[in-house]
Amino acid sequence: MDLSSFVTSLATSFIIFAILLLVFSWLSKRPGNEVIYYPSRVLKGLEPFEQGMKSRNPFSWIMEAIRASEDEVISMAGVDAATYLVFLSTVAGILILSGIILVPVLIPIAVTDDSLQTEKENSKDQDKFPSFSVIDELAMGNVKVKSARLWAFLIGTWWVSLVTYYLLWKAYKHVSDLRATAKLTSAAQPEDYALLVRDIPPAQQGQSRKDQVDAYFRKLHPGTFYKSMIITDNKHATKIWDDLVKYKKKLAHDEAVFEESKTGEKGKPEGTRPECKTGFLGLIGAKVDSISHYEKKIAELQSSLEVEQKDALSEKQQTAALVFLNSKPAAVMASQTLHAQTFDSWTVEEAPEPRQLIWKNLPKNTYERQVRRLVIYGVVFLTVVFYMIPITFISAFTTLDNLKKLLPFLKSVINITVVKTILEAYLPQLALILFLAFLPKFLLFLSVAEGIPSKSHAARAASGKYFYFIIFNVFLGFAIGQSLISSMKAIIKSPTKIVELLGSSLPSSAGFFITFVALKFFVGYGLELTRLGPLIIYHLKNKYMCKTDEERKEAWAPGAFGYATRVPNDMLIVTICLCYSVIAPLIVPFGVLYFGIGWLVARNQALKVHVPEYESNGRMWPHMFKRIMAAMIIYQITMIGYFAIKKFYYAPFVIPLPVMSFVFAYVCNGNFYSAFSRTPLEVSCRSEKEAVSGTTPNMQMLYAAYVPGCLKIAKQNDDDDDFDLDDKKFLDAETHSRSMSFNA
Amino acid sequence: MDLSSFVTSLATSFIIFAILLLVFSWLSKRPGNEVIYYPSRVLKGLEPFEQGMKSRNPFSWIMEAIRASEDEVISMAGVDAATYLVFLSTVAGILILSGIILVPVLIPIAVTDDSLQTEKENSKDQDKFPSFSVIDELAMGNVKVKSARLWAFLIGTWWVSLVTYYLLWKAYKHVSDLRATAKLTSAAQPEDYALLVRDIPPAQQGQSRKDQVDAYFRKLHPGTFYKSMIITDNKHATKIWDDLVKYKKKLAHDEAVFEESKTGEKGKPEGTRPECKTGFLGLIGAKVDSISHYEKKIAELQSSLEVEQKDALSEKQQTAALVFLNSKPAAVMASQTLHAQTFDSWTVEEAPEPRQLIWKNLPKNTYERQVRRLVIYGVVFLTVVFYMIPITFISAFTTLDNLKKLLPFLKSVINITVVKTILEAYLPQLALILFLAFLPKFLLFLSVAEGIPSKSHAARAASGKYFYFIIFNVFLGFAIGQSLISSMKAIIKSPTKIVELLGSSLPSSAGFFITFVALKFFVGYGLELTRLGPLIIYHLKNKYMCKTDEERKEAWAPGAFGYATRVPNDMLIVTICLCYSVIAPLIVPFGVLYFGIGWLVARNQALKVHVPEYESNGRMWPHMFKRIMAAMIIYQITMIGYFAIKKFYYAPFVIPLPVMSFVFAYVCNGNFYSAFSRTPLEVSCRSEKEAVSGTTPNMQMLYAAYVPGCLKIAKQNDDDDDFDLDDKKFLDAETHSRSMSFNA
Repeated sequence: MDLSSFVTSLATSFIIFAILLLVFSWLSKRPGNEVIYYPSRVLKGLEPFEQGMKSRNPFSWIMEAIRASEDEVISMAGVDAATYLVFLSTVAGILILSGIILVPVLIPIAVTDDSLQTEKENSKDQDKFPSFSVIDELAMGNVKVKSARLWAFLIGTWWVSLVTYYLLWKAYKHVSDLRATAKLTSAAQPEDYALLVRDIPPAQQGQSRKDQVDAYFRKLHPGTFYKSMIITDNKHATKIWDDLVKYKKKLAHDEAVFEESKTGEKGKPEGTRPECKTGFLGLIGAKVDSISHYEKKIAELQSSLEVEQKDALSEKQQTAALVFLNSKPAAVMASQTLHAQTFDSWTVEEAPEPRQLIWKNLPKNTYERQVRRLVIYGVVFLTVVFYMIPITFISAFTTLDNLKKLLPFLKSVINITVVKTILEAYLPQLALILFLAFLPKFLLFLSVAEGIPSKSHAARAASGKYFYFIIFNVFLGFAIGQSLISSMKAIIKSPTKIVELLGSSLPSSAGFFITFVALKFFVGYGLELTRLGPLIIYHLKNKYMCKTDEERKEAWAPGAFGYATRVPNDMLIVTICLCYSVIAPLIVPFGVLYFGIGWLVARNQALKVHVPEYESNGRMWPHMFKRIMAAMIIYQITMIGYFAIKKFYYAPFVIPLPVMSFVFAYVCNGNFYSAFSRTPLEVSCRSEKEAVSGTTPNMQMLYAAYVPGCLKIAKQNDDDDDFDLDDKKFLDAETHSRSMSFNA
Repeated sequence: MDLSSFVTSLATSFIIFAILLLVFSWLSKRPGNEVIYYPSRVLKGLEPFEQGMKSRNPFSWIMEAIRASEDEVISMAGVDAATYLVFLSTVAGILILSGIILVPVLIPIAVTDDSLQTEKENSKDQDKFPSFSVIDELAMGNVKVKSARLWAFLIGTWWVSLVTYYLLWKAYKHVSDLRATAKLTSAAQPEDYALLVRDIPPAQQGQSRKDQVDAYFRKLHPGTFYKSMIITDNKHATKIWDDLVKYKKKLAHDEAVFEESKTGEKGKPEGTRPECKTGFLGLIGAKVDSISHYEKKIAELQSSLEVEQKDALSEKQQTAALVFLNSKPAAVMASQTLHAQTFDSWTVEEAPEPRQLIWKNLPKNTYERQVRRLVIYGVVFLTVVFYMIPITFISAFTTLDNLKKLLPFLKSVINITVVKTILEAYLPQLALILFLAFLPKFLLFLSVAEGIPSKSHAARAASGKYFYFIIFNVFLGFAIGQSLISSMKAIIKSPTKIVELLGSSLPSSAGFFITFVALKFFVGYGLELTRLGPLIIYHLKNKYMCKTDEERKEAWAPGAFGYATRVPNDMLIVTICLCYSVIAPLIVPFGVLYFGIGWLVARNQALKVHVPEYESNGRMWPHMFKRIMAAMIIYQITMIGYFAIKKFYYAPFVIPLPVMSFVFAYVCNGNFYSAFSRTPLEVSCRSEKEAVSGTTPNMQMLYAAYVPGCLKIAKQNDDDDDFDLDDKKFLDAETHSRSMSFNA
């Protein structure tokens, strides 16, 4: 990559970023846009911004992001967002501390040598010698082989490693504290009292599953057992419930339309009753009055839902249950205790939050989960290694000639020259882009299919899978510059080859990756901040489709941080920055900018935009930690290879580093991980004391939080407070719910 | 190996075995030998043998071993011995089921081919062609390359694998049941109510460690906390205690001598008071009357022990404790629950049995344990790989010339020709033999130094280390027939090489390993059964040294099964038998004999000889399981390599096997292991019910079982029943003990 294209690329990215920043500061001040740029605050009933609008300068959001304390972030967006911010700031810190030494020391050392120039002059065929630019001269490649200057780079390699160990240890400790504090200070949560019980063995003849579970837990936890909820097969009930919700929305919409028609400009005082067609997608069939049609539908669904509810609760009980104990420490101890002697029965674990529960995965038994996991690991392996095969196949299949044959009606369009050229050039890329766009969703689907019981766990699993894909195909694929399969063949034949391969091929693509990082943060963060997509969609929907408040709220719903795709993408940058930190120290400032701006933007989004979908109390951190360490080890192996290529006698001094990294990761995980996978008793006892001194939790409320929407009895216009505690008809497994509307 | 030497070797082994069997049946009937051949029964107060002596034929022990039920074995020798027997019978079962197919099918297929003969005839230099015998013709080596006959061997490879999976699964389940039953039916054991607490954080100013521990556990387990015992530094007290015991023994001995001198043949009625010297080892110094000397010494030590006990209990409290809860389920739940948020404080686990506790390891904190483990892993790695280096060094150092120079007084001895020749020939071997003899002890020492809190765990760790040594140096070392280091170099360069290496070098040493297995069981088991060593030592001691009953009892003390060395040695045979099962099916009958006779002998020893040192309820099994699976995988990789060398087109059909083995081992361990590492709540609750219906456990007795000998207050001739429950002077951490004499 020569200098001019490098500078052009950077400049373009920067200009786009500057424009987007201006657009953001203009748009965010416009009235009507609060729900796009401050939805989280709107939902919490806060003023969008604290000062008056006039005093806001274009960069006030930066000051606000910096000034906010970690506690504010946690109160607005939860511990998960705070953990993600710790991740960003830790990586930024690693790069800043590394850069302080690397940039002012290594760059001058590299640029004052002249290995590239000499090589070019000595090269027989100077024209064929690959061109190099100032960027290459700033990198380790410009240092002569066996030069004593390599000592500086060796020390740099150690420095980066030690800085990383130090900051990661601190960060792990910090997140661990965040998690403990969150668990300590939070009010009584349903999940603190609940156990998830899976793999319930077959009940004895004549014993209902409910009796069986109650008897088992009453015996083992005689003093603390409160109640159990058997997991039922809700597929049918959910379908009816979804339809019901859909029709209720339609009814509300059409009622609003009817009201509008009475008062609008062209309105008649008696109004125009909206009509709809009853057939497929509302496109065909007889025209009917939609309000009365929907009302009829709702009444029908309501009664069939009630029938289905009874059926589900009595006939469709599954081999899983939620068990409620009446004290936090008891639940903590029970969730960590092995219950049954046989592994395939009575698996007990901490219950996820109600809103995280993946209801349909709960009854899957241990054998099924094991088989599913194995199969899915296989599928992921094939996807990562051979993902090009189906794409190539589809590309080959969707040539223009094939398209013409299959879809003759497209013929006239395709024959236009412009369209033809574009299609011919981009059809294969289009397939690739579509594949990459759907990959995260596909991986999330696979992770859910493993039988994981909670959404946050599934997101972590998907993130892990995506990380493998990105590292193997984007990072290694591009850097090594040859097909993954052929490199893998070479590596399997001789594993020491991997060191050589990394050391020899990575350095040449430093320039590309610098511009890649710059593009990522300038354009990526600019787009994230301006939220152009949601803005346009909201305004369109608001203008043409939304009639009720609920519909409008749905139109601007800000969504959650998508950790499953965000984290692996950041991890790619971590890997790039670490791997090139010593080889081409110029990348470090860009990395600092990426994670620095990323931290600012993420803080802004956490404080003002995103609303968490669930709270896992920083459970993501060990996952991120492991992957940073993996990047670290790739970096250290690359350095061993590169020092060997530079024929540096003291290259073996780098060899202890990967070993140290393994030991560090092992020790760190051994030390901190247990508090992430389990709740310490200390924490539950301390908060218990507070709860005792305050009000005791309403167990029935906690229990009700787990009842899925489709099993709740809908008594419209009936806001009374009684909970109908022992409705025997419904086998205790349901209850009326008031305001707690966690959806299953 | 040619046929004649093979037959000679087998015949010799068999004759030795037959002689040893006859010797055993003669010796075991002789009066006075019961304590050598039936010590376990003698200790339990049973008749040595049930029938009258006359009716016993030489093989009645076999019938008795077969007829005994598993429950009898458990009641005599504990669950650990029963688990070891399950291991032996499972491996025997695997080999019998494999052999039923392999021996009658594969041997005829191999012997009717003529690959070796053809090769020899085609070989240019027939004299140099390695000789082969009938044994080689019975093996897979005699099948032609690419022959269709190889299908039978391929199917055989699958058959052995499937049989192994099936029987191992059954065995794991069986041992798991054994463990559960043992925990269910056993009376209240001290360890059921105790928690081992390590890594206690620094106490607050002015707070004693005892108060700190009590406060912490009283808060977290308000209803169930009973008492705590702080671990103290007993080094000094133990030394005094050991001296005290030694002098008491000497006193009893000399009193017996004195009594004898009154009544003996040459006796004077007033007797001869024995005398001893007070100096170094009783060899120098002034002569004194020994009875009064010992009495004085004992009185001195008694008082200094009391001073030291007070000092230890008040000043030498360490950062570990045993905490007692008053119910089994509470202890089970607490032991499995993470207590503290920070990993380096309040580590809680199940307490080992009192007799298993390695007291001095308990106060080692988590960081120290981690560092120790790392260092020791390094030492073990170096020992396994480079063990020849120090031996070579010592051998080089201890040449005769060097010896003469260093120890001139040996000169005259060394110059004798016979001695010289022998020394020259055997000095290096002597060093090797000494090294191998001390290796198990060295590995046990290393395992204890890791900071492991219980003896059974240390035995497992030592067994694991010994297994690596044996597999790498005896099995692979001999089979591959080249130095481990050079093979490792080749393997690191190219890991696929290991398949080739195993496949090409293993088959040639089949004959050697068959005779090795035969020697092992004929001679090894013969010697074990006859117990010639203990017999001779006992009779010598009894005649010349023992005066008191206690001394005699010590002289015939049978000791425990030495699992730490027994299991790895059996594992070596498992590995050999599996690896050669298809290559040279002739080994299978020998393997069946090894494990069959081994099972009989071990049953005999379990029923009549060995007395368990501790009871870990089959905790050894997962350890053995993993190593059988490792042997399985070595076997399958060898087969892949050998099929490739035989140029069999369908060799890839073997490739799924190692993958299947990994999956099987992973699934099996995932499924069953948790019930071995933790106690299921179910089990503790069921036995709790029994305890409640019967008598409640005497908590003070359970507590007292953990007080180490050196901290017990010795009140001689004071057998009263009161326990002096709140002796504040001793800070509650000690108590008088009556009959429970578990030693720390």
